[in-house]
Amino acid sequence: MSFGRATSVHSSDGRTWTGAIEPDWDIFENANGGYMMAIAARAMSGAADDRLPVSVTAHFTRPGKAGPVSIATEVVRAGRTFSTVRADLSSEAGVVLAMLGTFAEAGRSPGDTLLVDSEIPDVPPPDDCVPALPAVDGPLPPPLMGKVEERIHPDDAGALLGKPTGRPRMRGWIRLRDGEAMTPFVLLLVADAFPPAIFNTFLPLAWTPTLEMTTHIRATQVEGWLRCQFTTRFISGGYLEEDGEIWDESGRLVAQSRQIALIPR
Amino acid sequence: MSFGRATSVHSSDGRTWTGAIEPDWDIFENANGGYMMAIAARAMSGAADDRLPVSVTAHFTRPGKAGPVSIATEVVRAGRTFSTVRADLSSEAGVVLAMLGTFAEAGRSPGDTLLVDSEIPDVPPPDDCVPALPAVDGPLPPPLMGKVEERIHPDDAGALLGKPTGRPRMRGWIRLRDGEAMTPFVLLLVADAFPPAIFNTFLPLAWTPTLEMTTHIRATQVEGWLRCQFTTRFISGGYLEEDGEIWDESGRLVAQSRQIALIPR
Repeated sequence: MSFGRATSVHSSDGRTWTGAIEPDWDIFENANGGYMMAIAARAMSGAADDRLPVSVTAHFTRPGKAGPVSIATEVVRAGRTFSTVRADLSSEAGVVLAMLGTFAEAGRSPGDTLLVDSEIPDVPPPDDCVPALPAVDGPLPPPLMGKVEERIHPDDAGALLGKPTGRPRMRGWIRLRDGEAMTPFVLLLVADAFPPAIFNTFLPLAWTPTLEMTTHIRATQVEGWLRCQFTTRFISGGYLEEDGEIWDESGRLVAQSRQIALIPR
Repeated sequence: MSFGRATSVHSSDGRTWTGAIEPDWDIFENANGGYMMAIAARAMSGAADDRLPVSVTAHFTRPGKAGPVSIATEVVRAGRTFSTVRADLSSEAGVVLAMLGTFAEAGRSPGDTLLVDSEIPDVPPPDDCVPALPAVDGPLPPPLMGKVEERIHPDDAGALLGKPTGRPRMRGWIRLRDGEAMTPFVLLLVADAFPPAIFNTFLPLAWTPTLEMTTHIRATQVEGWLRCQFTTRFISGGYLEEDGEIWDESGRLVAQSRQIALIPR
């Protein structure tokens, strides 16, 4: 099932939406957080006259399991250019994620690149990277890897091979399978679809419960391979963050992300 | 008026809170975003049995003006260790900011520092930095500078002196005035209390409308001078982000922040 279908939502009143967490978008049997954010964001966008996501935050309250979900949306404010929208995505068990987002008029000009005080992440071409494929048996790599085409930088692929590099970093390429066209909503998935950067540390390869994730989206269209970099700089005070950058093939930053998670045991 | 009093909130039912945006916490006559986040976060904490903020997100819908405010809170989920809470902070004009946060049990152990893959920001001692004081007349530096003691890294102080360095970076020290004790809520203010890093670029020194801000807090207590670094790496696609790091005197990261704003004109 395509990403587009697996994130589709329906509503009769423009406020309450129905959809489903489809199977095989999971890791350790919990649905991928970015995938669930994309489902909810599509409902939020629908509630906001199809405005497009600029900044979307999710707080995770329960693991998501495959099955039907409902998304209750509320437009906090609809301005001339931006709408602020909140949503709860709920399963039978209760609220799975609470969301808050700002959405922009689709026709808004994306704007030029005025200043970049950063380097494009250094990643060899996709064919020189290590493909991440779902495990034939066992939990890792997760079933989600069957839904996207993902190539990991050889220098960061130690995590996949049982030989962590010691440096919490994960770089690589990603795109949807079968040449599926990509909407900005896919960036919410992409920001959460790589192996955690901390898999390259001494920490156990275990479920890393994310408390909160925010993704900023600067593109209204995306295509081709997306060049990604994820880093964790601080494992301290009980928490760890992961920062993501997503670039397109033309060398344009299309999204940034940050999540805060509990340290896995 | 102290930060503690200027952010105090009251409620009779534990759900709806009243408080005030006090004068002189503003820039260009709009209340500082981090200051308003602290007011709302105190109400959210109150609604969550005084649990402490871990990750707090605000989406800004209207400029905040001095005057009374009400904060409608809702606990989305109260778990054993964490509570997810949402809130709207409203003035007479309507909703000023919509918030979503995760709060942790106050007794939760802060946890050791397990890994830091980053440098402590290089800032000379406070006495060797440039004090940021409120302007005697004119909008900059803003009145807020009378509420905190702030010292700017001499290499980044060009922005204050009409000579931007060209590099969107702002480092320095901050603490509350008159030795006021600091709670974790002050970190929400601190994350938004320095001159914008982009004041060191070619962009006009103008109101920079923040759409969304998220602050992660890793400390349950803070004291002394706080060492801060704010950077903007991408001014593109119509938006700019600002990333913040806040460290205490012992060299511990106590908070991280990121906001996304419109490019000032």
